[in-house]
Amino acid sequence: MKSFKTLSLQVEKRTLFLLDQTQLPHQEVWIKIESLEEMLTAIKRLQVRGAPLIGISASLFLALEAQKKRWTQEQFRNNALKLRESRPTAVNLMHCLDNLINFFDGNNYNNLEEKAYAFVQEDIQLCNKIAHNGAKLFTNNDHILTHCNTGGLATAGVGTALGVIKQAHQSYQNISVFVDETRPLLQGARLTTYELEKAGVPYQLICDNMAAMLMQQDKVSKVIVGADRIARNGDFANKIGTYSLAVLCHYHQVPFYVAAPYTTVDKECASGKEIPIEERPAMEVQREWAPVKSPVYNPAFDVTPADLVTGWIFDQGVYSRKEIKEGILC
Amino acid sequence: MKSFKTLSLQVEKRTLFLLDQTQLPHQEVWIKIESLEEMLTAIKRLQVRGAPLIGISASLFLALEAQKKRWTQEQFRNNALKLRESRPTAVNLMHCLDNLINFFDGNNYNNLEEKAYAFVQEDIQLCNKIAHNGAKLFTNNDHILTHCNTGGLATAGVGTALGVIKQAHQSYQNISVFVDETRPLLQGARLTTYELEKAGVPYQLICDNMAAMLMQQDKVSKVIVGADRIARNGDFANKIGTYSLAVLCHYHQVPFYVAAPYTTVDKECASGKEIPIEERPAMEVQREWAPVKSPVYNPAFDVTPADLVTGWIFDQGVYSRKEIKEGILC
Repeated sequence: MKSFKTLSLQVEKRTLFLLDQTQLPHQEVWIKIESLEEMLTAIKRLQVRGAPLIGISASLFLALEAQKKRWTQEQFRNNALKLRESRPTAVNLMHCLDNLINFFDGNNYNNLEEKAYAFVQEDIQLCNKIAHNGAKLFTNNDHILTHCNTGGLATAGVGTALGVIKQAHQSYQNISVFVDETRPLLQGARLTTYELEKAGVPYQLICDNMAAMLMQQDKVSKVIVGADRIARNGDFANKIGTYSLAVLCHYHQVPFYVAAPYTTVDKECASGKEIPIEERPAMEVQREWAPVKSPVYNPAFDVTPADLVTGWIFDQGVYSRKEIKEGILC
Repeated sequence: MKSFKTLSLQVEKRTLFLLDQTQLPHQEVWIKIESLEEMLTAIKRLQVRGAPLIGISASLFLALEAQKKRWTQEQFRNNALKLRESRPTAVNLMHCLDNLINFFDGNNYNNLEEKAYAFVQEDIQLCNKIAHNGAKLFTNNDHILTHCNTGGLATAGVGTALGVIKQAHQSYQNISVFVDETRPLLQGARLTTYELEKAGVPYQLICDNMAAMLMQQDKVSKVIVGADRIARNGDFANKIGTYSLAVLCHYHQVPFYVAAPYTTVDKECASGKEIPIEERPAMEVQREWAPVKSPVYNPAFDVTPADLVTGWIFDQGVYSRKEIKEGILC
């Protein structure tokens, strides 16, 4: 596999490096991934995160490692299945690994690497198309609110929702962004701020509970978020707090968009009810400030029903609620 | 003034001590307040907080200090006005201090102390009445969501909204509480958890952005919050995030109650539009995780319009939206 580098992903001399997202924005530390255990840990600890990026990183790791270690088809399959189970909600990981499991015949190591690398190239293209399609929905003076991180730290390309925002900033005058800090793991406060500073896009960081007040004051003209899994009926899972924003947008009549590549659609999934929601450790919520043994509820994602979505921004185009209802995702 | 002690307030040998709420729940540190500067700092840093408690603490401090230092009427007035301006949103502080300013004639030091102490006794009674009135609205198996801290750390008594919750827990079976952590200053995660543990009330700590998902799943039967200022028309200011909850309750048809003593009503204020909203330092939101210079919007409160409130729980009784509209607060 050729060497390459994205904002958060690097292959150099046939070794995978990940930008450790838990250390951002203060330190840019690249971690070398040389074992299945390291790759699993990186995913579970969210050193690598973002639905598209997890799928791509795991694929690159498996393809490189299979070649180096001369894994049999069965070894490959077993290792891929362990990675497949590392996080349950985002579907991109499952799609990528199922694809590779079916592809690898125990001998076609080089082709396997090419296939994994093709995921990178494809994702870059998908992001560009999403940004292009989404930006058309925006206009001068848009004040956009977003949640979590959906940029170059969540994909191999410019991002999904954040890619749209960056494109809107380039295309129009006076675009600004409200960044939800996104508790508990603060992907907004740590990662989206980092990316928007790099991109020179004006933003203000807020706590998640401030979005409603901003909408009440007509300070938010549009909300755009990413997705971890989209069901056939348009319901989608995304970072916890997304559903809250969708309800607030509905009440305040603020357009609410979701942006994702076609790879995030799960055709097996009829509706959001079927999407498994990961619950994560209490410590992420307790941190150093809550009583040590305080009981916690910590779902990492929530499900937004299609009825609350204004438009689905895909690489293929922007779908309306009507089109979704008519089954365009089926 | 006699010595006395509440959960977070103490007068001993004519000296005021405050439980430093910034160090809870891990350390119970009482700070001695011996100068105006210390009192101002304690309020501004939220070492003492909660609309009723701020007013009472400042009153006790002024009365004790006036006596000790033999302040003239003018000195008293000047010092009281400095305290009055220390936080702009909660009205209890202003009510208490205006009352004392009018009362003190430059000589009646003992009566001034009695008057300040009467605020303590009154607040304890008001809290009991609120708890009694509010608990009637609850029932077995209620799963109550609350925001910020409105208990014995916010008042001299059992609290406002949290007093109601504690009373409901005593009166009914299977009461449990979802505690919003309440970013940015985490009064829920640090203080409400601390009080509920002491009171033996079952709870789960959540991030503010999880409330919507809980409502979507029918896991929240009622929401109750406190208030920092209530306008004549029933609109009220409370900790940032309250308005968001009110909208979410409206959408999910979950009853939404506000609990406060009559001292929180500002009859000068026709509607919520007239309530000044304090903006606080960016560092509270940035903390150690955001880029050091990230721009921040950090309003400490928001305003919930009366139309979103199911009932106002006062010491005098529970008022309906109809009664509020008919001008019962005017």
